[in-house]
Amino acid sequence: MKGLDIMNKDNSIKKLSTQPYKGARDFYPEDMRIRNYIFDTWKKVCKRYGFEEYDFPFLENWDIYAAKTGEEIVNKQLYWFKDRGGRKVAIRPEKTPSVARMIAAKINELSRPIKWFNIGNCWRYEKPQKGRGREFFQFDCDIFGVSDTAADIEVFSIPIEIMKALGATQKMFEIKISNRRLTEYFLKELACLEGDFSQPNSRLYKTVKAIDTKLKVTELEFEKLLEEAKLTNKQIQRVNEYLNYNLDDVKKYKDKCYGAEELIEFFRIAESIGYKRYFKFSPEIMRGFDYYTGNVIEQFDLNPKNNRSMYGGGRYDDLVGLFTKEKLTAVGFAMGDMTLIEFLKGWNLLPALPADTQVMVTVFDESLRDKSFETAQRLREKGINAFLYLEADKLDKQLKYADRKGIPYVIIIGPDEVKKGKVVLRDMRKKEQNEIRMEEITDLI
Amino acid sequence: MKGLDIMNKDNSIKKLSTQPYKGARDFYPEDMRIRNYIFDTWKKVCKRYGFEEYDFPFLENWDIYAAKTGEEIVNKQLYWFKDRGGRKVAIRPEKTPSVARMIAAKINELSRPIKWFNIGNCWRYEKPQKGRGREFFQFDCDIFGVSDTAADIEVFSIPIEIMKALGATQKMFEIKISNRRLTEYFLKELACLEGDFSQPNSRLYKTVKAIDTKLKVTELEFEKLLEEAKLTNKQIQRVNEYLNYNLDDVKKYKDKCYGAEELIEFFRIAESIGYKRYFKFSPEIMRGFDYYTGNVIEQFDLNPKNNRSMYGGGRYDDLVGLFTKEKLTAVGFAMGDMTLIEFLKGWNLLPALPADTQVMVTVFDESLRDKSFETAQRLREKGINAFLYLEADKLDKQLKYADRKGIPYVIIIGPDEVKKGKVVLRDMRKKEQNEIRMEEITDLI
Repeated sequence: MKGLDIMNKDNSIKKLSTQPYKGARDFYPEDMRIRNYIFDTWKKVCKRYGFEEYDFPFLENWDIYAAKTGEEIVNKQLYWFKDRGGRKVAIRPEKTPSVARMIAAKINELSRPIKWFNIGNCWRYEKPQKGRGREFFQFDCDIFGVSDTAADIEVFSIPIEIMKALGATQKMFEIKISNRRLTEYFLKELACLEGDFSQPNSRLYKTVKAIDTKLKVTELEFEKLLEEAKLTNKQIQRVNEYLNYNLDDVKKYKDKCYGAEELIEFFRIAESIGYKRYFKFSPEIMRGFDYYTGNVIEQFDLNPKNNRSMYGGGRYDDLVGLFTKEKLTAVGFAMGDMTLIEFLKGWNLLPALPADTQVMVTVFDESLRDKSFETAQRLREKGINAFLYLEADKLDKQLKYADRKGIPYVIIIGPDEVKKGKVVLRDMRKKEQNEIRMEEITDLI
Repeated sequence: MKGLDIMNKDNSIKKLSTQPYKGARDFYPEDMRIRNYIFDTWKKVCKRYGFEEYDFPFLENWDIYAAKTGEEIVNKQLYWFKDRGGRKVAIRPEKTPSVARMIAAKINELSRPIKWFNIGNCWRYEKPQKGRGREFFQFDCDIFGVSDTAADIEVFSIPIEIMKALGATQKMFEIKISNRRLTEYFLKELACLEGDFSQPNSRLYKTVKAIDTKLKVTELEFEKLLEEAKLTNKQIQRVNEYLNYNLDDVKKYKDKCYGAEELIEFFRIAESIGYKRYFKFSPEIMRGFDYYTGNVIEQFDLNPKNNRSMYGGGRYDDLVGLFTKEKLTAVGFAMGDMTLIEFLKGWNLLPALPADTQVMVTVFDESLRDKSFETAQRLREKGINAFLYLEADKLDKQLKYADRKGIPYVIIIGPDEVKKGKVVLRDMRKKEQNEIRMEEITDLI
């Protein structure tokens, strides 16, 4: 064994830290079962809707983030480096640029509608805190190439089905919805604000950014932000009026503003398929990303101890513009694993997730190990998940192992059983055991 | 939309490349289905054996590779950089150091035997070629804490069950096995070579490295390597004698050499559980990694057009030595996705893998879209994977879509059907369609 040993001052070899890289998580089998439970639920619901899974490399050329990902992420949070060939390479901090790249590469081959989902990790250099790490897994689910609002309601119904599949009920979460076009229309019409979402120096943009923080700040702080955006008192009053609008107010503008039409249509379809009760029109919903254009949603955990945003989504145009001249509309959402786990823990929804092992075969002594091995193989051939203990430890120690691992059945094969051609099957929960013939095992387990 | 647009010389915005980062792969849904087919098979077989899944971050502190991973990888192939806090961080090029770290962190808590598997990606800066990329997925499967040879045969039988599950038969592959202790013994006893595996300048080490390349070079080239290792003609003759040994020759040394005992015991258990026919004693098998100590295996594709190594494994001691003073033995193997896919393609074993969508619901016209939406939702509630087309394109276009996607059934809901409270169910393979009541669908699909 060669290599560079790292030495202590006294020339003994320094033992390295057993901690994972800061802000990232190890997944021991018990953690992995939780992760798989969540991933499997995400996948199952997506497939139920006919969505297809895709993936792409963890490293991307730096350029694809430089243009659209936003200054804060690129300048402060992006992991990037030059590879040995001098290329600027980045570790993905989000997935939208990659899916845009993939779709642009086959823009004329892919049949639309394109309904895709991905589960994968992203990295951001952030201060680790509860529910937020440097490595996080994200579930991305989008419909590409359908401009109709039917796509919005279809894709936004998926997280509701996921909540249901995870055992959540309506009282545990709230989905707020608004519409970017509607916001822009009202800010222009009622508050006479000029500019648009793409002009960071305009009063409209600054007002939008202020509204985006509204749920996190006090009323006074919010007013201060609007003053800083150089809004007159009259305009501030109008903005606040709009923020108190309900759906009936919006209906009056259906013919004047496409955003109003989109939102009304969203609620109409939602009602006809039974999802209306999950959505609440909330004009303050903006979503951070600048690329949203139409309906935008954000789900909140209603647990008073954990009242936070769980995920968001929205309709966005010009997805593939960085890569091709074609246009492609899209609507989707992205949900992280860490906030979801906090939600499930907060509402006591994480089920007991035992290992998939159904039976453990013990080893009586070394002379009988082959018998145990054969038995384990026979069970496996029959489709039973069988763990072989391998070493001839004391039976008591072996039983304790099965107990700790939550393995429900144990098979014991001693010399008496071998003589009779039988095995002992022990039910670990009932703490009962019976001598049975090998062929009976599959019926009993 | 802000950000840094990249400009052409004429000030138009430059479109970025749609290619993934060099040596890495995009997984479109059809590629993803192949990947999932392989991953699911790996998982299913591991669970059948009672192995548990684990995972760990993609980034690790650079130190854990510096010591043991080997000069070539660290100096030429490792992706590493300094993070914003000045830490030296590496992207995992292999997984053994990470699993050692995880086990060392809980060395006193984890019940043994520990049987773990992981599926995840690794990166190495290599020249991309067929069956080898910079990003590859690797399946790692190990037993920790069992020194008995029973663990070797158990873990090495897993890839055989994977081959079977993927439809491969014995004639398609060959597993060669040898033993490091045996090689060392014979090189010392018969060829009088001094040194050991940890001394790169010893003749023994150089001879071992020459043997490791034997399958890839000509007989003359092999002899030249031994001459370069400064072996006498007599010694070269003895090395070649050993390389022609069969299992009966090894048996004679059972009491003198623990490696011989391990190998004989391996074949004895393999015979008793029916796996002997898959393994062939081949003294030239060494495996590249220096950390192997006992039995080592390597599987080869027997396809004459693709005759290459598919994966390898072995027994290795002192797994956790970098992190703790405790000792822990281990035995395992690691298999990559790319060579496995080449194997399956070469033998025509890749099955048709259609999407999981069972039925597509068409949209007759905008006025009837809600009906289609409701129908899709009802199917989903019943556990059927239903794709809703969403837009009211021409029916012909919608049917072509289902055909291209391989969706077996299509539902059509026109005004006549709505009046009668029925739907048309079209069987895309038989090209037949029937009017049926909604309730009948679940029976028919």
